[in-house]
Amino acid sequence: MIQIAILGLGTVGTGVARVVAENARQIERKLGEALQVKAVLVRHFKDGPYRQLMTDDFSKIEGDDEIRVVVETIGGVDAAYEYTKRALSAGKHVVTANKQLVAERGCELLALARRKNVSYLFEASVGGGIPVLHPLTQCMAANRIDEVCGILNGTTNYILTRMVRTGAFFSDALREAQAKGYAEADPTADVEGVDAGRKICILADLAFGRQTDPERVPMEGIGRLSLRDVKIAGRAGYRIKLLGRAVRLPGGGRTAYVAPHLIPEDHPMAGVEDVFNAVMIRGNATGDVMFYGRGAGELPTASACVADVMECLQASPKRDEIGWSPDAGGFEDPEKLKSRYYFRVEGSLTDAAMAFGQVEVLSEDGETAFLTDALSGAEAARQSRSLNVLARMRVLDSGSAGSGREA
Amino acid sequence: MIQIAILGLGTVGTGVARVVAENARQIERKLGEALQVKAVLVRHFKDGPYRQLMTDDFSKIEGDDEIRVVVETIGGVDAAYEYTKRALSAGKHVVTANKQLVAERGCELLALARRKNVSYLFEASVGGGIPVLHPLTQCMAANRIDEVCGILNGTTNYILTRMVRTGAFFSDALREAQAKGYAEADPTADVEGVDAGRKICILADLAFGRQTDPERVPMEGIGRLSLRDVKIAGRAGYRIKLLGRAVRLPGGGRTAYVAPHLIPEDHPMAGVEDVFNAVMIRGNATGDVMFYGRGAGELPTASACVADVMECLQASPKRDEIGWSPDAGGFEDPEKLKSRYYFRVEGSLTDAAMAFGQVEVLSEDGETAFLTDALSGAEAARQSRSLNVLARMRVLDSGSAGSGREA
Repeated sequence: MIQIAILGLGTVGTGVARVVAENARQIERKLGEALQVKAVLVRHFKDGPYRQLMTDDFSKIEGDDEIRVVVETIGGVDAAYEYTKRALSAGKHVVTANKQLVAERGCELLALARRKNVSYLFEASVGGGIPVLHPLTQCMAANRIDEVCGILNGTTNYILTRMVRTGAFFSDALREAQAKGYAEADPTADVEGVDAGRKICILADLAFGRQTDPERVPMEGIGRLSLRDVKIAGRAGYRIKLLGRAVRLPGGGRTAYVAPHLIPEDHPMAGVEDVFNAVMIRGNATGDVMFYGRGAGELPTASACVADVMECLQASPKRDEIGWSPDAGGFEDPEKLKSRYYFRVEGSLTDAAMAFGQVEVLSEDGETAFLTDALSGAEAARQSRSLNVLARMRVLDSGSAGSGREA
Repeated sequence: MIQIAILGLGTVGTGVARVVAENARQIERKLGEALQVKAVLVRHFKDGPYRQLMTDDFSKIEGDDEIRVVVETIGGVDAAYEYTKRALSAGKHVVTANKQLVAERGCELLALARRKNVSYLFEASVGGGIPVLHPLTQCMAANRIDEVCGILNGTTNYILTRMVRTGAFFSDALREAQAKGYAEADPTADVEGVDAGRKICILADLAFGRQTDPERVPMEGIGRLSLRDVKIAGRAGYRIKLLGRAVRLPGGGRTAYVAPHLIPEDHPMAGVEDVFNAVMIRGNATGDVMFYGRGAGELPTASACVADVMECLQASPKRDEIGWSPDAGGFEDPEKLKSRYYFRVEGSLTDAAMAFGQVEVLSEDGETAFLTDALSGAEAARQSRSLNVLARMRVLDSGSAGSGREA
């Protein structure tokens, strides 16, 4: 019998307890031993099925040598950081879905885990139940990773899907998402791209092997997105999606950012709708592979945590591929990255052509919407200086992802 | 320095040597040591970059204690089986992309590997460079797997894509695939569903933890598929795809088969085109997740082999989740599985309605094409006995895969 503890009993914590109970047979078959939740850390005792496991004293868990793995589902940094350090220091494996903590302190916590010869795993922090981090770090270990790009936030993808499909305004679509439980009462972290930003930081850390400082990653959400641009893009054969991107730059640098993009309709990510997530990873040998599924939810996220618990117990904790250098050098401003740009400006095609030379016009009616050739962000900003810019977004290449069109 | 040997120097073998050389830096960073190909087993010596590594004597590799991992890229069963057994018995890890060998003898070879305390890994045998088997066995380890379903063969998917997109006949599309190097001179194993069949056997073995006997898995290819059905399905909002499916049956049984299916256009697998592959895995906690990418090719497949080499060297070889019981009991005929069926019959709607009651008509012009309600294969066969059946295919449910429509 292997004993574990859960910190926090919110959505993910409850899900972990449920998965351990409901899939006990599958877990025992693979682990060779049964898995049991011995303790649950809570702030306030509540009645319910886990009442007899509850404690509000972390030192009881810390000092219990029978507890081999701690699943941290508190979220945020303060208490979660403190307890994670103490659990690792006490020689326990720690598993989490806490993207903020991993993005901000993951490198340090991984180093501590290595010193203590235990594991710190966080598959559930990106993509919920969709396997992403293990495939990236292990299955694609023989690749140089050139880009990771994804629809990393289900709430904003749901809102965008409603805007495209029913022509809803952003604010109405957000209210609908809140009514369905897909968006928090305070949706800022989702809508402003912060949640996706934390996830792309973790993906960049693992893809490139170096610390990505979240503060240097520009995060633009969909709060200022106009329904007008959604419609113009749709008529021109594009969908607007909020993407996190981490890109290896020519010359050895790297960058990462979050922003809404125009994606060609025949790109595999264009069809990712509602609360679904997708992550595309480009390896220099494998080419583009995509992982798709529900990016959130109690059981998907919890089952990823429990798989990590099983991984801790079976794998050598010395796996160096999960981990990265604290050296944040080589990170560059994503404005250096070239791509085609979508602009909507107040003015005529002549104004647009004066600024950018030849452009691809998408709509003209007092305002002009158009696509430029590939430009860096800095060039796009400089060339558009004389224009009254109402909207500006990057266009994602079809790339090598097998858009359905032949090369 | 870690030494490995490659058996065979065809497409995959050459790719392995290339990936080891070209991505040496990435590999060394993750492994903590450099990786080197020390020997390549060939039948006939040939000039080229690997000339000085070649041997035609397996016992030299078998007896070389410096060689810790053997990558078997010979293919087929005879020599590959023999050498794999000898390499494992000599205490070497073995990695392969050989789907036939794994489907037929994998269980036995895994048991031998366990006894010798080494690993036998074969991520590249399904989906080429797309991570599928590791995510299935590790990342989704806390799930009961209820279904695995996929577009597992790039050649047939290319042919189907051409038939849909350009209205090409099967034979012309096949010739085109051969001209592009996507199909072998003898395309039988691809076209008749045998290649996809071996892959679905491996997926079923791992998903359900029991041996799937390839001889009991019905494999139907696309050789008899009519362009007429492709067009009728297209007009009705379906794409025809060759699917391998492994399904857990109510009551604890399981089944597997390969056959062309109608897939609703808004299903994520409907948009998988050309030589791309996709595998959908349904876990009871995670729901449906999909893995997508190029299913074949020198470098993708080779990079999956090299990742397995790295995994062997880092992981505990005792990972019980990679492995299954030799007990093949509980396998049932897929005819028990219920689904909607597509029929094209010589006759009128009245004939169809006499046989099946209410049906959904797709086309009527002397022949009648229609969809039935959900039926088992046995029921579909019995009820259609009085009809002159020209075509019959299963229809894939939209399922929980996030078809883009809301529940």
